[in-house]
Amino acid sequence: MHSETKAVLEALQRGEISVDEALGRIKNEPFVDTGYAMVDLHRKVRQGSPEVIYGEGKTADQIIGIVDVMAERGQTPILITRINEEKAAALAEQHSIDYNKAARIAVVGDKPEPDGIGKIVIATGGTSDIPVAEEAAITAETLGNEVVRLYDVGVAGIHRLLAHKEYIMEASVIITVAGMEGALASVVGGLADCPVIAVPTSVGYGASFGGLSALLSMLNSCASGVACVNIDNGFGAGYMASRINHMEVRK
Amino acid sequence: MHSETKAVLEALQRGEISVDEALGRIKNEPFVDTGYAMVDLHRKVRQGSPEVIYGEGKTADQIIGIVDVMAERGQTPILITRINEEKAAALAEQHSIDYNKAARIAVVGDKPEPDGIGKIVIATGGTSDIPVAEEAAITAETLGNEVVRLYDVGVAGIHRLLAHKEYIMEASVIITVAGMEGALASVVGGLADCPVIAVPTSVGYGASFGGLSALLSMLNSCASGVACVNIDNGFGAGYMASRINHMEVRK
Amino acid sequence: MHSETKAVLEALQRGEISVDEALGRIKNEPFVDTGYAMVDLHRKVRQGSPEVIYGEGKTADQIIGIVDVMAERGQTPILITRINEEKAAALAEQHSIDYNKAARIAVVGDKPEPDGIGKIVIATGGTSDIPVAEEAAITAETLGNEVVRLYDVGVAGIHRLLAHKEYIMEASVIITVAGMEGALASVVGGLADCPVIAVPTSVGYGASFGGLSALLSMLNSCASGVACVNIDNGFGAGYMASRINHMEVRK
Amino acid sequence: MHSETKAVLEALQRGEISVDEALGRIKNEPFVDTGYAMVDLHRKVRQGSPEVIYGEGKTADQIIGIVDVMAERGQTPILITRINEEKAAALAEQHSIDYNKAARIAVVGDKPEPDGIGKIVIATGGTSDIPVAEEAAITAETLGNEVVRLYDVGVAGIHRLLAHKEYIMEASVIITVAGMEGALASVVGGLADCPVIAVPTSVGYGASFGGLSALLSMLNSCASGVACVNIDNGFGAGYMASRINHMEVRK
Amino acid sequence: MHSETKAVLEALQRGEISVDEALGRIKNEPFVDTGYAMVDLHRKVRQGSPEVIYGEGKTADQIIGIVDVMAERGQTPILITRINEEKAAALAEQHSIDYNKAARIAVVGDKPEPDGIGKIVIATGGTSDIPVAEEAAITAETLGNEVVRLYDVGVAGIHRLLAHKEYIMEASVIITVAGMEGALASVVGGLADCPVIAVPTSVGYGASFGGLSALLSMLNSCASGVACVNIDNGFGAGYMASRINHMEVRK
Amino acid sequence: MHSETKAVLEALQRGEISVDEALGRIKNEPFVDTGYAMVDLHRKVRQGSPEVIYGEGKTADQIIGIVDVMAERGQTPILITRINEEKAAALAEQHSIDYNKAARIAVVGDKPEPDGIGKIVIATGGTSDIPVAEEAAITAETLGNEVVRLYDVGVAGIHRLLAHKEYIMEASVIITVAGMEGALASVVGGLADCPVIAVPTSVGYGASFGGLSALLSMLNSCASGVACVNIDNGFGAGYMASRINHMEVRK
Amino acid sequence: MHSETKAVLEALQRGEISVDEALGRIKNEPFVDTGYAMVDLHRKVRQGSPEVIYGEGKTADQIIGIVDVMAERGQTPILITRINEEKAAALAEQHSIDYNKAARIAVVGDKPEPDGIGKIVIATGGTSDIPVAEEAAITAETLGNEVVRLYDVGVAGIHRLLAHKEYIMEASVIITVAGMEGALASVVGGLADCPVIAVPTSVGYGASFGGLSALLSMLNSCASGVACVNIDNGFGAGYMASRINHMEVRK
Amino acid sequence: MHSETKAVLEALQRGEISVDEALGRIKNEPFVDTGYAMVDLHRKVRQGSPEVIYGEGKTADQIIGIVDVMAERGQTPILITRINEEKAAALAEQHSIDYNKAARIAVVGDKPEPDGIGKIVIATGGTSDIPVAEEAAITAETLGNEVVRLYDVGVAGIHRLLAHKEYIMEASVIITVAGMEGALASVVGGLADCPVIAVPTSVGYGASFGGLSALLSMLNSCASGVACVNIDNGFGAGYMASRINHMEVRK
Repeated sequence: MHSETKAVLEALQRGEISVDEALGRIKNEPFVDTGYAMVDLHRKVRQGSPEVIYGEGKTADQIIGIVDVMAERGQTPILITRINEEKAAALAEQHSIDYNKAARIAVVGDKPEPDGIGKIVIATGGTSDIPVAEEAAITAETLGNEVVRLYDVGVAGIHRLLAHKEYIMEASVIITVAGMEGALASVVGGLADCPVIAVPTSVGYGASFGGLSALLSMLNSCASGVACVNIDNGFGAGYMASRINHMEVRK
Repeated sequence: MHSETKAVLEALQRGEISVDEALGRIKNEPFVDTGYAMVDLHRKVRQGSPEVIYGEGKTADQIIGIVDVMAERGQTPILITRINEEKAAALAEQHSIDYNKAARIAVVGDKPEPDGIGKIVIATGGTSDIPVAEEAAITAETLGNEVVRLYDVGVAGIHRLLAHKEYIMEASVIITVAGMEGALASVVGGLADCPVIAVPTSVGYGASFGGLSALLSMLNSCASGVACVNIDNGFGAGYMASRINHMEVRK
Repeated sequence: MHSETKAVLEALQRGEISVDEALGRIKNEPFVDTGYAMVDLHRKVRQGSPEVIYGEGKTADQIIGIVDVMAERGQTPILITRINEEKAAALAEQHSIDYNKAARIAVVGDKPEPDGIGKIVIATGGTSDIPVAEEAAITAETLGNEVVRLYDVGVAGIHRLLAHKEYIMEASVIITVAGMEGALASVVGGLADCPVIAVPTSVGYGASFGGLSALLSMLNSCASGVACVNIDNGFGAGYMASRINHMEVRK
Repeated sequence: MHSETKAVLEALQRGEISVDEALGRIKNEPFVDTGYAMVDLHRKVRQGSPEVIYGEGKTADQIIGIVDVMAERGQTPILITRINEEKAAALAEQHSIDYNKAARIAVVGDKPEPDGIGKIVIATGGTSDIPVAEEAAITAETLGNEVVRLYDVGVAGIHRLLAHKEYIMEASVIITVAGMEGALASVVGGLADCPVIAVPTSVGYGASFGGLSALLSMLNSCASGVACVNIDNGFGAGYMASRINHMEVRK
Repeated sequence: MHSETKAVLEALQRGEISVDEALGRIKNEPFVDTGYAMVDLHRKVRQGSPEVIYGEGKTADQIIGIVDVMAERGQTPILITRINEEKAAALAEQHSIDYNKAARIAVVGDKPEPDGIGKIVIATGGTSDIPVAEEAAITAETLGNEVVRLYDVGVAGIHRLLAHKEYIMEASVIITVAGMEGALASVVGGLADCPVIAVPTSVGYGASFGGLSALLSMLNSCASGVACVNIDNGFGAGYMASRINHMEVRK
Repeated sequence: MHSETKAVLEALQRGEISVDEALGRIKNEPFVDTGYAMVDLHRKVRQGSPEVIYGEGKTADQIIGIVDVMAERGQTPILITRINEEKAAALAEQHSIDYNKAARIAVVGDKPEPDGIGKIVIATGGTSDIPVAEEAAITAETLGNEVVRLYDVGVAGIHRLLAHKEYIMEASVIITVAGMEGALASVVGGLADCPVIAVPTSVGYGASFGGLSALLSMLNSCASGVACVNIDNGFGAGYMASRINHMEVRK
Repeated sequence: MHSETKAVLEALQRGEISVDEALGRIKNEPFVDTGYAMVDLHRKVRQGSPEVIYGEGKTADQIIGIVDVMAERGQTPILITRINEEKAAALAEQHSIDYNKAARIAVVGDKPEPDGIGKIVIATGGTSDIPVAEEAAITAETLGNEVVRLYDVGVAGIHRLLAHKEYIMEASVIITVAGMEGALASVVGGLADCPVIAVPTSVGYGASFGGLSALLSMLNSCASGVACVNIDNGFGAGYMASRINHMEVRK
Repeated sequence: MHSETKAVLEALQRGEISVDEALGRIKNEPFVDTGYAMVDLHRKVRQGSPEVIYGEGKTADQIIGIVDVMAERGQTPILITRINEEKAAALAEQHSIDYNKAARIAVVGDKPEPDGIGKIVIATGGTSDIPVAEEAAITAETLGNEVVRLYDVGVAGIHRLLAHKEYIMEASVIITVAGMEGALASVVGGLADCPVIAVPTSVGYGASFGGLSALLSMLNSCASGVACVNIDNGFGAGYMASRINHMEVRK
């Protein structure tokens, strides 16, 4: 944005534009106001990936409206997270989408070829954690990453994890997805030498308190090199992992 | 107690005692009232081990008074938990004690020979968990158990635990003592085929919330065969493990 | 597993197998990967009982798939916990099952003859706690234990419990199942001389906070010899009790 | 107050006082404003007992100032709760007081003769609960009640409580004081046929969370006829019990 | 029960009964075991009112079964709390009941004539608190009390409460029922000179956290003479108030 | 009310009314008792706006009854908050209403012309916060304020907010409505020089804990000049903003 | 800042400054970087009052350094909140200060003459709430407001508050400061027709949980026109009240 | 480790070592057991950095013992976190250390030259957050990173942050350190296009609940590309940032 501002100032100095025009351009923000949403159109340029639509709490019409604005301007692929079947069906009538029901995630447009540093390994503690893991996986793939899925390797059967230790050792970034006591993050964090993103899930009952148990467990991990996202936030983990996995490319 | 009541009734029927006497005996409870404490003197008979004194919140005089009552009646060894140095010093002037300052536990009288089914293994996640582990260890030893200490084998360096796997496999009962994310219980629970008692500790900071993180982690353990005691309750774990370790002897 | 590794090494030394074969066998883990689950097939050998399927969050197809893998290899009886009626009906079309609707637990295969040290007594505070108690009871029976049910003996009518004191005194292990204030664990813990497993339930309203009240109560029990499992975790209590009840047999 | 207002109005009607005087009297509140406290002087008339001074957070000078105002007007005996030794010493230089250090309660003036319906029984779970129990006891005695102390009768040794069952059955009101799991309230509530006031205490550690465990336990008591006051609020329990114990006298 | 035991012993002494008979009678508890419930039949004698059935978590058949046992033995009127419409309809087919849908409470048998010391005033903060207040009111009426209803007098319009001050001043016991910030208990507690039972309700949203806000407010009331029951526990408040209101009658 | 009381007293002094009449008038409160609600009719005079009806927990009949009482006496416009579609439909059969389904708010009668000091700006973090923002907006408009809506300007795209900085600088009062991390309040609070009312919303998932995250964030705002209302309490924010916006008019 | 930017642009257009100079000026922020703090020097202009120093967690040297920067540039009076005695003494050696020990607040420079719309009334529930109230009062006075102190008027003695009703009715803004159950805010909010700022305090014990009880109470206030600041945040309340009280002056 | 095992197997095959030797080597773990700690000596090889010593809860002697073991084997530089002044002084007598008192962190040995991808920017919300930020900075520097410190740029004065936007845009990794409402993470996350590690701090009071407020805020960040570590865990953030910053080097 810095250079954009400079360009405006230079145009002003050259007398090509008036003060009011310059003022307008400097203030003119790169988004479209739909009334209910300020759709960010410069984010792909500014942050390397287009805006993501959080589907929960938005009506189908609102989601379609935002997709329209973005698609018209070539801001694809577009990720829509936490979108239920009904809204996805409505969206599918307007746009060609790829929808994963369990993960409640839709993608408008094609996924790019992987261009990251290495592979992102996504490991889950159990079978019930798979929907969150898929949200992470699809997010990462949509952002240009190769993903390795390693499901149901929870620590109560540590040999299942150790049997796949080579995936852990070869990963560029690892995402651990686990509910209940969330211990997977610590064990993986102790084995790996790459950044580990921990995603607590709401899988469990009773004193899991909707994922609080796994969240606290992951925040308190005695392993170094582990950072945490919100409960069930597969998207956030996939996005963060992608940023890390594109570090060398970015420079 | 059942047979005791029957004996009283038979004595009454035989006319050896009066109704009032019988009533008195049936009601007569096996404890001494010191004014501030009802000291239970039948517990050794009833439950296999003498009453334990919880030192927190009792004055040195109250502790000494209770020990006096018990010692006079041969109720030894006597465990006093959560007793600080000052109170322990006062007690030591009256009774010969064995005091562990870090674990804040004192024992009056000699520890018995181990007579349990097997060995109790006590594993800690880190060095900072040792005081709680020692409370468990001394409790178990005082109750007649052989104890194996396996300290600083937390899951962030899983190879440290796996290197000692034979202790895990040969244990009769295992006590896992861990703070922070408390994942040790799940990993050990998945490896072992004996009962595992999990003790969360208040070791940690921030979102460990005084041991809450480890506690929830252990309660939500995805491993089967794990049960939990209160935060920092080394005594409770040692006592429970001893009960389990004396199962075959008891019958 | 130790001796298995040794056997592989000896075969290698004798030249019967190649280094790669040896490496493969050492790494070869005893589970089947279905894509969504790593089914543990050595657990019966390793831990004395087959893997248990946690039905919540798994689709009927996933559950059936795991049962197929286990049943084919003779890993029965198979316990499936937290399986709702619909999934149980789907499973029943493929396998002969014994289903308890209130406890939401299914068993594939026959329960074995009891072979434990003694009896497991399961006591509930009220009638509403029975489904959780039944989950514990069926688990324990499936693992080879004789179970005594003692329901609705909560402490607000202490005489109901005292009237059944002989069951408490004769038990090998006791499971106390209670919601609301969960005081049953403490009273039973004070009477019994065997290990007591406490199961808090979510029975209650208002400040019971989904079982938190009973959980805290049980964790803070002033009785010794009590350990706790997660809220509504009847399975965990039954499994733990069975491990304890098979101590002498195991050695 | 109703009849007082009527008297003012009648005096006005008779021309004995002016409108402004009447207005003044109706608005004139029965308290003294010391700048930092509005000392209520009509409370003894209005509610049957004088105002009580909560010592925490008040300076010694403020406490003495309030006592001065009350004592001058014969508002004795005066209870000062949560007053530490230092402030009590300062107060004792100005007024003759009866101070209980453990309970941190001071009384200015003589306790009256008991004039309640019956006896108030105060039972504690353990020795460590005694300071809170004494706050309740001294409060009740200062308000004209006979108190029976029944200490260290926690439910983990239920026979200790049952041995004193006649006190429970003969009580007019019972106050149960317990920390940790606070189960005493439920057991006593199930035995007694009189109102039971439950006082949770902060005695305990770990998951007692400063008395939360006992508080929740008491609020969720499955016994009927139990109501609860704040953690460590011995004063509140003593005051409430006194109100109940003076019911028949009041009418 | 004391005298009952004595009578048995005297009969034994006189040779009228054998030791085994005596043992049986002493042990013989006054309840009926239905398999799922221990129905207490001596409670009316022991505690002045029959057992109350908590409908939540019981099936219609279980409720009917317990009512059958009680009704057969003349244990009426019978209160069933937290019973939904469906179960109430099933019960109504077997027994004549009086059912309040909003309060989810049913009464089998006739309410007695009021015979308490005075009137029980039940005040609510708002209209939404009425169902809980009615649970208290019907409970109190069924237990022989005259009830005065004072609804929608919350403190945000303090004049509405002050306008009814005479009810407050004339009450024998007051029950305050309020959600949200629950301040009604403190204001009433400051006005009244009789015992006040505070019932927090789950009325509210957001940071009311299901009644937690009102509960904490009531527990921390700066007014003396207030005690608290569980969130939404109208029954408990009505029962406690009735016990207090029958103090003088009882002696 | 003060002068009203004085007038009554003067009438009494002049002999125009009797003592009992005077007493009655002084006590006579300005509300109508419908049995389930004390409808406040003087509030418009006393506090500048008529009573507001909280629709949750009230039946349609109760709402209509209260509206009837108010409308008959000209107490319009009437706001009914948290009223669902079904109840709104029932109300619409009796009264002409303006209903916003997303915000669940109904208005009976016409909104007045804006007469406040300036404009109230309502900013939301995202699209999902709009229903709560609309509750605030409609409340403020009904109370005579001009409202500027500034939706979807959350801090994760700070340029969207900065692009509308002139609205922030020109506002009389600002309401910030945000869920998730609720950071909007702090950023706006740091930019603005007018009072800021922060409304946390329950928008979010996982560790947003129903709005707790946003609430704590807003309470801890490091910006000065920010005060907070309950989670999702759009009405409260609109009402408070209106009071502030009518300050100079009021004097 | 808007017009400042415009001026820079005009100077650039007139050729008076270069593009780089213009760029620099636009970017040039009005603060001084001390290394440990970015001292905001334009805040007085931008927001009507100078920056306030939060003393907690800053060393005496850091505080003095910030005061130096501000005082040199005439940014007085300067408020320093949460500054303990030791730091205040160190500061007093460098600058002339007015220090309130109980409220832990220091003021450098003279307080201005009051120039607000009206008076700010600060009411406390009890004597122990006075330090927080004084923080609010001194803040408001330093910002140019007349303050009326109304201390110890908690709702448990409602007549004390009603006796001072005229202060409530004549206030421009009211700050209610209360711990324990915090009901004062609701009662005052129901009486007043001006904005009410509620400050929960940490006064209390047990289930007040450090002010949580009062905080929830105030957030859930059933009175309209009440907004809340953080626990013990007297400064925030005084600042907010001042902003409101200066509304008409500002325009 | 994989290839190490293979080498052992090949040596065995070649007959160079016996089965027992092979077994021993495979089992032989790369750590030293001091009795109280299992010091990991292969971690530098395995994970790219030596083990870090958590000083809290360890005695000075224990810390020195671990440092001795590591230093002897050239495992430097050694980080010791959360080590208080007293222990640091004891350590300094044995080893040459670099100690930061505010951050409570000590380094034994020299920091290496920076060799990461780019710069790590560490931004704090306020001055009080600096100790935690320094823990992160020193950790990152010790692990071979160049660090840019950007302190006191909290969002309540957003211009302070925007004035340093170029640091944000040029960073390789950003660590945001903030207490209170923790909004800095979201604003920075929205501006930056690199990974952001958020560190909540316990700076604040009242409803900050020891850092919970900031933690929840950061977990719920509406900005993408943000992950979180434990409250006050500067070390964890620095370590994670270093792993990310060494991604391209590692491959």
